[in-house]
Amino acid sequence: MSKPRVVIALGGNALQKDGEVTAAAQKSVAEHIGQIIARLSSKYEIIVAHGNGPQVGNILIHEETASTPSAPAMPLETAVAMSQGQIGYWLSQAIGNAFAREHKHRQVVSLVTQVVVSRDDPAFKHPSKPIGEFYTAKESIKLIKTRGWEMREDSGRGYRRIVPSPKPLDIVERREIMSLVQSGTIVIAVGGGGIPVTRSKVLKVLRGVDAVIDKDLAAAKLAELVKADIFVSVTAVPNAYLNFGQPDQISLGILTPAEALKYIRDGHFGSGSMLPKIQAVAQFANKKRLGIITSPENLELALQRRSGTIVQG
Amino acid sequence: MSKPRVVIALGGNALQKDGEVTAAAQKSVAEHIGQIIARLSSKYEIIVAHGNGPQVGNILIHEETASTPSAPAMPLETAVAMSQGQIGYWLSQAIGNAFAREHKHRQVVSLVTQVVVSRDDPAFKHPSKPIGEFYTAKESIKLIKTRGWEMREDSGRGYRRIVPSPKPLDIVERREIMSLVQSGTIVIAVGGGGIPVTRSKVLKVLRGVDAVIDKDLAAAKLAELVKADIFVSVTAVPNAYLNFGQPDQISLGILTPAEALKYIRDGHFGSGSMLPKIQAVAQFANKKRLGIITSPENLELALQRRSGTIVQG
Repeated sequence: MSKPRVVIALGGNALQKDGEVTAAAQKSVAEHIGQIIARLSSKYEIIVAHGNGPQVGNILIHEETASTPSAPAMPLETAVAMSQGQIGYWLSQAIGNAFAREHKHRQVVSLVTQVVVSRDDPAFKHPSKPIGEFYTAKESIKLIKTRGWEMREDSGRGYRRIVPSPKPLDIVERREIMSLVQSGTIVIAVGGGGIPVTRSKVLKVLRGVDAVIDKDLAAAKLAELVKADIFVSVTAVPNAYLNFGQPDQISLGILTPAEALKYIRDGHFGSGSMLPKIQAVAQFANKKRLGIITSPENLELALQRRSGTIVQG
Repeated sequence: MSKPRVVIALGGNALQKDGEVTAAAQKSVAEHIGQIIARLSSKYEIIVAHGNGPQVGNILIHEETASTPSAPAMPLETAVAMSQGQIGYWLSQAIGNAFAREHKHRQVVSLVTQVVVSRDDPAFKHPSKPIGEFYTAKESIKLIKTRGWEMREDSGRGYRRIVPSPKPLDIVERREIMSLVQSGTIVIAVGGGGIPVTRSKVLKVLRGVDAVIDKDLAAAKLAELVKADIFVSVTAVPNAYLNFGQPDQISLGILTPAEALKYIRDGHFGSGSMLPKIQAVAQFANKKRLGIITSPENLELALQRRSGTIVQG
């Protein structure tokens, strides 16, 4: 009997523990995640997706701060590609090392992944996602003029660039991901929600666009396309909650997609945090497919429906 | 009959035409290379390797110049991984677009690739490869103290970090590359010579090291491991030459590995330019396997042994 196929989406902050942001610190956290993934791989076919918020933020800060004519800053879409190389390397090495420490070998590979979005996505008219450095009002006006950026005041700390966050429609490398996972390889893909590209209507030519795709929505789209049995969004908390942080907070255990959508409509989830995760699992889950939200520590139990927030039905 | 399998190593400067280093300019050159690769793929199974000299140089300049405690510079091995994401993205999109423009589809994928080197490689005792920014003597002394870097005066323009350039011994992702190329996918791999890693003796645990691996030697090693029929080093000139740049310059056509090795011993090739290419093709070539040095324009003819420098025998 074939193993259930699982897409695991790791939170963007999952590699940064206690605010430690050096490569050494992030690799050390990756080694811990690698052990969890390696252990699960005896029972599941695994694809790992991951966020890149803090990492691509730092890449953009470096690129923009130190940009010169002979070493110009790379655009956002290329910076996403760079973060896929960076985090994909750390994760693939860490997962492989977890097997090596058990005197085992398993194929692990990280793919550069492009994710198709629509030029007509309303997100392009209403950019909403702040990225990169904070700027003064004066710098901000200059960037609007010279770079055509859209800028917005952010949390009283200055101005930041805001970019569109369009919906993922297709994964360019889905066939390669599918064939590798079917042959027993652990695949790391759609890092940072994928490199956002548009696809021209007639010729199907791809072109990068400066945007960021929500990593949970992109990973859930991949889960659907590769016919995964389970999609898990791994985050800092063991469950999703109603009335989160209130005295009457309720931990969500097992629920149906319809119930999840109702809670979304009732405004229970924060737009920058739990909302995209609940949306992603609710979209993916049905009678045959499981959507899960949980923490790294509860992942193994949650896959057995014994912990975490489980959406099915 | 199956198609001959070819590993094509693109020069590090291959994406930068006329000193244009913006992402847009490099993507435009990539589109041109993509057309050449797409055309060849009807006759050959193709793996593309590529250099990263100018790109990783700029990443290091940005990382080091704008490094702060909250956004610290990434180490060289991680910067190589970032450049694989960057260039791998540009190339995979460009090759895919070349098919799309012909109303065709072909699977193309770029893999994050780790290349194993030995801790005992003499290169670690004698770093030789300058990378990144130029520094003043004073800055240089500080970097030796604070970062443990080895620094050397370079071409009268200041001091640069020098790093080891060890020999490639194994490609961690060779099985995945092999299985993808066998299923008809065009694979981009070992970018920038690969992310240099050491492998511990007993447990086989991988660990990144700050070094750069010559991209021709790494690509030739990959060609050997995936049982390629042909290895091509693509560079700015159509051939290798004896007495290069002299009045008695001789263009090398067809020669044996033994002849190539003799010319190497006689000191005909520049260590930073043609030498590693000739070494790589001479190591790879034998009675059954072809090693080629040529330019992008001559690539198609050279694969038919009608142009370029051809090593075999």
